[in-house]
Amino acid sequence: MKIAMLGSGFIARFYTDTLHAQRREDTIHVVYSRNENNAARFAKDYGLPAHTTDMEEAVNHPEVEVVIIALPNHQHEEAVLACAGAGKHVLCTKPLGRNAKEAKTMLEAVEKAGVFGGYLEDLCYTPKFLKSVKSIQGGSLGKILWTKSREAHPGPHSDWFWDKEKSGGGAIIDLGCHCVEIGRNFIGKDVKPLEVMCWADTQVHPIDAEDHAIGLVRYANGAIGQFEVSWTFRGGMDLRDEVMGTEGTIWLNSFLRTGFEMFTTGKGTGYVAEKAESDSGWLFPVGDEAHELGYPHMFTDMFDALESGREPLETFYDGYVVNAILDAALLSAETRQWEPVVLEDWRGKTGETAADGRQKYDDAHYLIKREVLPNGDEKLILKHIATGEVIQKVKQASE
Amino acid sequence: MKIAMLGSGFIARFYTDTLHAQRREDTIHVVYSRNENNAARFAKDYGLPAHTTDMEEAVNHPEVEVVIIALPNHQHEEAVLACAGAGKHVLCTKPLGRNAKEAKTMLEAVEKAGVFGGYLEDLCYTPKFLKSVKSIQGGSLGKILWTKSREAHPGPHSDWFWDKEKSGGGAIIDLGCHCVEIGRNFIGKDVKPLEVMCWADTQVHPIDAEDHAIGLVRYANGAIGQFEVSWTFRGGMDLRDEVMGTEGTIWLNSFLRTGFEMFTTGKGTGYVAEKAESDSGWLFPVGDEAHELGYPHMFTDMFDALESGREPLETFYDGYVVNAILDAALLSAETRQWEPVVLEDWRGKTGETAADGRQKYDDAHYLIKREVLPNGDEKLILKHIATGEVIQKVKQASE
Amino acid sequence: MKIAMLGSGFIARFYTDTLHAQRREDTIHVVYSRNENNAARFAKDYGLPAHTTDMEEAVNHPEVEVVIIALPNHQHEEAVLACAGAGKHVLCTKPLGRNAKEAKTMLEAVEKAGVFGGYLEDLCYTPKFLKSVKSIQGGSLGKILWTKSREAHPGPHSDWFWDKEKSGGGAIIDLGCHCVEIGRNFIGKDVKPLEVMCWADTQVHPIDAEDHAIGLVRYANGAIGQFEVSWTFRGGMDLRDEVMGTEGTIWLNSFLRTGFEMFTTGKGTGYVAEKAESDSGWLFPVGDEAHELGYPHMFTDMFDALESGREPLETFYDGYVVNAILDAALLSAETRQWEPVVLEDWRGKTGETAADGRQKYDDAHYLIKREVLPNGDEKLILKHIATGEVIQKVKQASE
Amino acid sequence: MKIAMLGSGFIARFYTDTLHAQRREDTIHVVYSRNENNAARFAKDYGLPAHTTDMEEAVNHPEVEVVIIALPNHQHEEAVLACAGAGKHVLCTKPLGRNAKEAKTMLEAVEKAGVFGGYLEDLCYTPKFLKSVKSIQGGSLGKILWTKSREAHPGPHSDWFWDKEKSGGGAIIDLGCHCVEIGRNFIGKDVKPLEVMCWADTQVHPIDAEDHAIGLVRYANGAIGQFEVSWTFRGGMDLRDEVMGTEGTIWLNSFLRTGFEMFTTGKGTGYVAEKAESDSGWLFPVGDEAHELGYPHMFTDMFDALESGREPLETFYDGYVVNAILDAALLSAETRQWEPVVLEDWRGKTGETAADGRQKYDDAHYLIKREVLPNGDEKLILKHIATGEVIQKVKQASE
Repeated sequence: MKIAMLGSGFIARFYTDTLHAQRREDTIHVVYSRNENNAARFAKDYGLPAHTTDMEEAVNHPEVEVVIIALPNHQHEEAVLACAGAGKHVLCTKPLGRNAKEAKTMLEAVEKAGVFGGYLEDLCYTPKFLKSVKSIQGGSLGKILWTKSREAHPGPHSDWFWDKEKSGGGAIIDLGCHCVEIGRNFIGKDVKPLEVMCWADTQVHPIDAEDHAIGLVRYANGAIGQFEVSWTFRGGMDLRDEVMGTEGTIWLNSFLRTGFEMFTTGKGTGYVAEKAESDSGWLFPVGDEAHELGYPHMFTDMFDALESGREPLETFYDGYVVNAILDAALLSAETRQWEPVVLEDWRGKTGETAADGRQKYDDAHYLIKREVLPNGDEKLILKHIATGEVIQKVKQASE
Repeated sequence: MKIAMLGSGFIARFYTDTLHAQRREDTIHVVYSRNENNAARFAKDYGLPAHTTDMEEAVNHPEVEVVIIALPNHQHEEAVLACAGAGKHVLCTKPLGRNAKEAKTMLEAVEKAGVFGGYLEDLCYTPKFLKSVKSIQGGSLGKILWTKSREAHPGPHSDWFWDKEKSGGGAIIDLGCHCVEIGRNFIGKDVKPLEVMCWADTQVHPIDAEDHAIGLVRYANGAIGQFEVSWTFRGGMDLRDEVMGTEGTIWLNSFLRTGFEMFTTGKGTGYVAEKAESDSGWLFPVGDEAHELGYPHMFTDMFDALESGREPLETFYDGYVVNAILDAALLSAETRQWEPVVLEDWRGKTGETAADGRQKYDDAHYLIKREVLPNGDEKLILKHIATGEVIQKVKQASE
Repeated sequence: MKIAMLGSGFIARFYTDTLHAQRREDTIHVVYSRNENNAARFAKDYGLPAHTTDMEEAVNHPEVEVVIIALPNHQHEEAVLACAGAGKHVLCTKPLGRNAKEAKTMLEAVEKAGVFGGYLEDLCYTPKFLKSVKSIQGGSLGKILWTKSREAHPGPHSDWFWDKEKSGGGAIIDLGCHCVEIGRNFIGKDVKPLEVMCWADTQVHPIDAEDHAIGLVRYANGAIGQFEVSWTFRGGMDLRDEVMGTEGTIWLNSFLRTGFEMFTTGKGTGYVAEKAESDSGWLFPVGDEAHELGYPHMFTDMFDALESGREPLETFYDGYVVNAILDAALLSAETRQWEPVVLEDWRGKTGETAADGRQKYDDAHYLIKREVLPNGDEKLILKHIATGEVIQKVKQASE
Repeated sequence: MKIAMLGSGFIARFYTDTLHAQRREDTIHVVYSRNENNAARFAKDYGLPAHTTDMEEAVNHPEVEVVIIALPNHQHEEAVLACAGAGKHVLCTKPLGRNAKEAKTMLEAVEKAGVFGGYLEDLCYTPKFLKSVKSIQGGSLGKILWTKSREAHPGPHSDWFWDKEKSGGGAIIDLGCHCVEIGRNFIGKDVKPLEVMCWADTQVHPIDAEDHAIGLVRYANGAIGQFEVSWTFRGGMDLRDEVMGTEGTIWLNSFLRTGFEMFTTGKGTGYVAEKAESDSGWLFPVGDEAHELGYPHMFTDMFDALESGREPLETFYDGYVVNAILDAALLSAETRQWEPVVLEDWRGKTGETAADGRQKYDDAHYLIKREVLPNGDEKLILKHIATGEVIQKVKQASE
């Protein structure tokens, strides 16, 4: 498919590097940047037929079927509305909006226009993540109780991120959007997020927004989706997820510990590792950065979905839910209370409550724990249903 | 030194195994258990000169200089008071009390009696932890911003833990006491803990107390001490700590990933790994469990301190502070709000506030971030002090 | 490009899964299998236009530009000759031949016919490997001294591997071909392999070939390329590489420890992990198996090279050199001596010898070691050039 | 017990630090060094009652019951003979001799004198190693097929190591002694080592001995004990062991990856990590270095054995066997052939051969492999006993 790329910065280059590699069939046809030099250089670097400083021109380019939005957060809404107006399919980088209100406007615009709205949440497309979700959906971890998604690094690379008006916030909006959607996928996207408790602080940088935050999202089934985001981390880019279920556990490390370890004195002159904070000593590169971050699988899903008329794994609706959760997080960080997730448009399950997981041992007792001791005996911890008394009972191995 | 051991269960055995190994000079002289069989068997197993079902008798045994309390939580206060009454030095297992009130009573009793009060917080004595704290105190991580201590496993082994009255709570009191004190050590014990926000739930077990909780402790200098505790984890015993400072990061794994990995089909009959949830497939034993959990270094510090007349690293006062923090956590889990840490007796720094970490770039600007680009250029992100505007500036490598 | 696939087994499916995924533009057009059912099923599974039991028909199919050989080892030569005869480009799975003689015949056939001969050595295309080689070529590790490549698992999945006549050997030919070429890439492909010492044994399986072998390949510059191959490993598929250079070290783990860890009780019914030896307990899946094994990057290089008229990274000539080294390994395992690598056709550097790495400290001494002591003093270990005497010398920090 | 320490260098300090810590009951009473200053400083640092420059005086000191030899390799024999002559028990650092001849002399001297001869092979006492050996002896890994022990670092710290006459060789004698004995323990000490193939080279340092070597020791039961030793490694101290058995696998990492990871910018001034090659970036300290290297458990075994009249786990006889294997390794590195291990005094099993591990499937076939396919079918690979033909057979899941 032929694509218009809106934006020519870091993420636009990452997207284009991915799309133009590995003999993929979709290509960027025109790039838009408000800065002529940037547009021209981008077009030259990637051998694009066209570039422009007029967003409408790019969006309405006759050969373009799909528009990718790789602009700063405060320009997403305008760009999406332009695409919807032009009847062009649109893939928008994360976060969808600076808040749920913006996201809802965008969601409604694409739905009304009948165009495809893909949410470019790359970290929900890393191969490790996709396989984990598939395995969890198959039951390998039982009921999910808790998830933790962590993204931390020393801070973003462009000025607008650090400007609360343009980005919509600090580490919460920048990194939390990933973490929240990762949690939703593990817990189940049809499970309603109810409320959020969030701590946030500006610990290091001279900015108005938070550079460090931790939040808990409570879901209707009792599960907790924890996020940890920071622009104050030292040591590279820390991308880790954890999931706890009644039958198992998953730990993912997507960047700093992926089976690639090297030590160098730094005397050699060679290229070493991306995003590292040093170029000597022990370093932890990744093999193929785009792959580890989910870009190739994300675009494959998007274009396959578009062609086959199905929804992609990550939609504008998902972007909207994420924004609603982050709104609650930002509010909670101020009010210092659990704040409800306001979802005027909820499309998942309703009326769900935390299931009763209590297991009976016999008519009179619940089973608290069963444990095999080193000598082979089985130890049971039981609770009397009527009296609440807790007792232990050992069944000898020979019984 | 000659020791009276109060209690004959799991933890009493762990303590005795440690003390009677590695040609150490301190020995258990008498064991007390309210159950005659248990006392007798314990004495026989360890070749002790004496055993008794009378706690006072054990405490007042003329040859005994030090008493170790390895009893369920609800019996700590009575035992400590007995020791203080007898003028015997006392080492008490964790948590000190079921709440700060009990802990304060115990603290005051030993201080009034002029006896030694050692708090057996083993996880603050693991060799990895001791070296980390020393390195942090030396400045290797700069100012500490955040710590996370996590302890999670499938649940404790004895009935009384599951009974809220006896234990004082669930996973928070059982595991949180470790995690909170780990955070205090990393952040600095003289930094006042101000307030706690805690989520807790009973997700799996048919009990009254929580089997899963996550809490944030906010300190006077702005640092956050996070704890994650659970009796619902599957996969063994998960013991991990993390620290983030302005100049560095520490990650500790104390049990499941310590450089010992094995796979077994399970066809062999051999002993494999402690605390694992399976005995085939990939298993992760530790070399010397007592050592990895901090017992030998803990007792060395306790007895060395006693002999030399100094305080141990972990005192009854520390136990009291931990209990006060956990009280706030339990209350917060109910009220769903940040709850203040009530410390009637605070002995650390007062009046501390989060330092201003803002760095000036020049008279007009703060420095937000300095980054070296792949081409050697240096990119600066600056904030105008007066206007608040954020700009970026690239200094070419050749400048 | 349009492709004929020769073979319909495990590896043919892996290749096709890779090529037909991720919106890649090259497609399989026809499949050949001597078994009609297998050919038909393969064509149906992948929606191919054509299938046949006649190899010549597949090779000569008018729409086919490239042939991929995914046949058992003993059929490579015949298939390559067919392609050369038909003037079709050819990509052949590893090992190229069962021995250097077969490989040389194939090499000469494609060169004489002027067709492209790509050697499908996937493990030299894993993203981790490609980045490592690039970094090493840039100098990050200094001069390479030693490499180790290890591939071990419980044994292959098809009968013909276990039949020495068909496969050309056991673990050495099956797995050693990967390991030897990995070593060549790290050390430098233009550095001549001189001789091999190899131990091999049939330790577990009732077969004629070896199921376990360890070999050392000595190169003209003094570097050693070690390989460890086994069909007797328990625990999954062990794929690890190590490199030591004068300025650094690289450790790669390509399968069992890649940042994806999970524990499952096995009570859930979900899909868990490929190639694992169990489906409960701790498991170590990989995110995208084809990617981790190098297939996508391999085919990208092959087709890009073909289109642009350059050589791929792995050529038939490389396959020939690998076979020559393995011939020496198999002979050495029998003679129990270092055996020369016989290369009638050597295209790399000649006359190279191990460089003299001796560093002078002053006119009279070589420098053996320089070490900074904990107190800041510098300790030097020197060797007198004339007398050979070794001395140590401490330069105080304040000097 | 009261101890005389012969030597006052690095290893003597390590031993003394271990013995005088953790409230252990054995103490150094007198230290000998030929250098008066060193002896005096050592005695002062550790508060010893006595020091001397006369070895005989130290050995014959009336209060001394045990002598620890912590001298350079070329002084072991003289020191052991002095102990035997004085009727004092003796613990000797590794390697026992510079060669088997020296070791045999020492072995015979202590046996004739009837004194205790403990071989201070610390790496066979690390807690991970002790637990592994116990588990293997219990059968968890089935029959052991292969072990690998690796020790590599940038080179030793004292001049005499680099002098072949004094040390007896290079990396082989210095590090190989550990690796060989580790292999013997895993395979079984009563299994006879038959022959050795070894590659060795001087790749980096201007010395006469090898600074890098790899060897294979073949045992009577067909098992291989591989050693990898180097003074050319960059990145710290690499201490890893691996074991493969018919039923399992063990991987140990004793120094660089033990669950302790830290990143520091180096701006802080604090103490960071021992034996690291840098003091910023990612660093991998160990918790308690002496413990990780096996010293405390080693001395516990030695003194417990002495007191109870049993043999320690590591005896002078073991030191002799190790020297005999290293003699063969050094010879093989020269002759480039497998060289027999010459053991005039063999005390283990004799006449052992590699067992026949072939499993029958039915009367006509051996079973080569059994594998469960993803669809639940079972795939068998069989070999016809009479004809040698290899076939595969699939049993459908429903059968």
